[in-house]
Amino acid sequence: MVSTQIQACIFDVFGTVVDWRGSIIHHCWEFGKARGITADWAAFADGWRAKYRPYMDKVRQGDLPWTNLDRLHRMGLEELLAEFGLTSLSEADKAEMNLFWHRLYPWSDSVPGLYRLKQRFIIAPMSNGNVKLMTDMGKFGGMPWDCILGAELARHYKPDPESYLTAVELLMLRPDQVLMVAAHQPDLRSAQKAGLRAAFVPRPMEFGPNRTPDPTPDPKFDFVATNFVDLARQLGV
Amino acid sequence: MVSTQIQACIFDVFGTVVDWRGSIIHHCWEFGKARGITADWAAFADGWRAKYRPYMDKVRQGDLPWTNLDRLHRMGLEELLAEFGLTSLSEADKAEMNLFWHRLYPWSDSVPGLYRLKQRFIIAPMSNGNVKLMTDMGKFGGMPWDCILGAELARHYKPDPESYLTAVELLMLRPDQVLMVAAHQPDLRSAQKAGLRAAFVPRPMEFGPNRTPDPTPDPKFDFVATNFVDLARQLGV
Repeated sequence: MVSTQIQACIFDVFGTVVDWRGSIIHHCWEFGKARGITADWAAFADGWRAKYRPYMDKVRQGDLPWTNLDRLHRMGLEELLAEFGLTSLSEADKAEMNLFWHRLYPWSDSVPGLYRLKQRFIIAPMSNGNVKLMTDMGKFGGMPWDCILGAELARHYKPDPESYLTAVELLMLRPDQVLMVAAHQPDLRSAQKAGLRAAFVPRPMEFGPNRTPDPTPDPKFDFVATNFVDLARQLGV
Repeated sequence: MVSTQIQACIFDVFGTVVDWRGSIIHHCWEFGKARGITADWAAFADGWRAKYRPYMDKVRQGDLPWTNLDRLHRMGLEELLAEFGLTSLSEADKAEMNLFWHRLYPWSDSVPGLYRLKQRFIIAPMSNGNVKLMTDMGKFGGMPWDCILGAELARHYKPDPESYLTAVELLMLRPDQVLMVAAHQPDLRSAQKAGLRAAFVPRPMEFGPNRTPDPTPDPKFDFVATNFVDLARQLGV
């Protein structure tokens, strides 16, 4: 049985553990209110998230040297502020905005589910977010991580196999003893290709009310759960 | 004031956070009792710990490729068992013994002190122990680490400056914003040489009742505390 082999559960974070979109909109709205700035903050949040992929791909393809996600977020922010005509912000303002990503709210089942899973398994983020970002977010959101894993420790972004396999190596486990948990099917397929197990937890609200995420789970996934508490139950915790 | 700059406290672990000697004696004694093996387990514990330094120095000098502490412990164990005439142990027995290092008991003030420090600072181990070892030990002992740092992430053992500076870099801080906490003055002096702050917490019982550790703290240390709760108090938490 798969679940008796599993020793560690590692998690995609943006969208899977936390509601990045709702949180960024919230922080931007409060930030703007305090400064008399109005903007379509939902479009701003979506735009900021969209900027991360092309920069990340440059790193993955070797066109940029290793650059952590905080720094990629900042590069995207500079472009986005220009596009939104928000050109009067100070360096301190921009530094503050970039830290919005360190204060993302967990989905309501995330923390209770993680506490249950932690009883039996090592639990760790396996995110493209850097160690400091994940550490701050864990403190902010109360995620009881046992350790912080992720792309930065491999200097390879997901879905490069090195990213997953560095986590497996640091845990001194075999790939099939590690369960990757994500709301994104391509992430899970890449983890499975590297030999890990996969649990799909769809988060239909990740992209807001107007986007319909793929509703059909790949039948190759080892688990499909409605949320983290359901996943713990399925894993026998 | 030094304490207002500090953003993170990072800890030596063996001897500083946990009583490695008492714990190894305890686990060996229970292990031996279950198998009818008697030995001078205090000498065994001291001998095992003593074997780690020469192996580590081989890694530091490049005579051995990077080898994590679990594997160095195992190499030392093989030698030690031969020296103690314990030659009939199975592979499973030896694997079990090597995991004794994952189950070391914290000194009585360690966990309460860490909870206090965690309120204001990022807290993380900065040990020569590898990520898996520290992760398991944190779960066993209830240490509420925010993340796991340490030699393995730098592939440089302490006191190489790369070991401390990789932790600083992953935390995205300046060295003088990071406080190294240790019961060993050479560790602290090396951290200070790399630009970190230093807090000395003597653990007079680390080596058992018959060894007297150096009682005179270097006046260059930023803090000298009787235990972790006292350190939290001195840092204003």
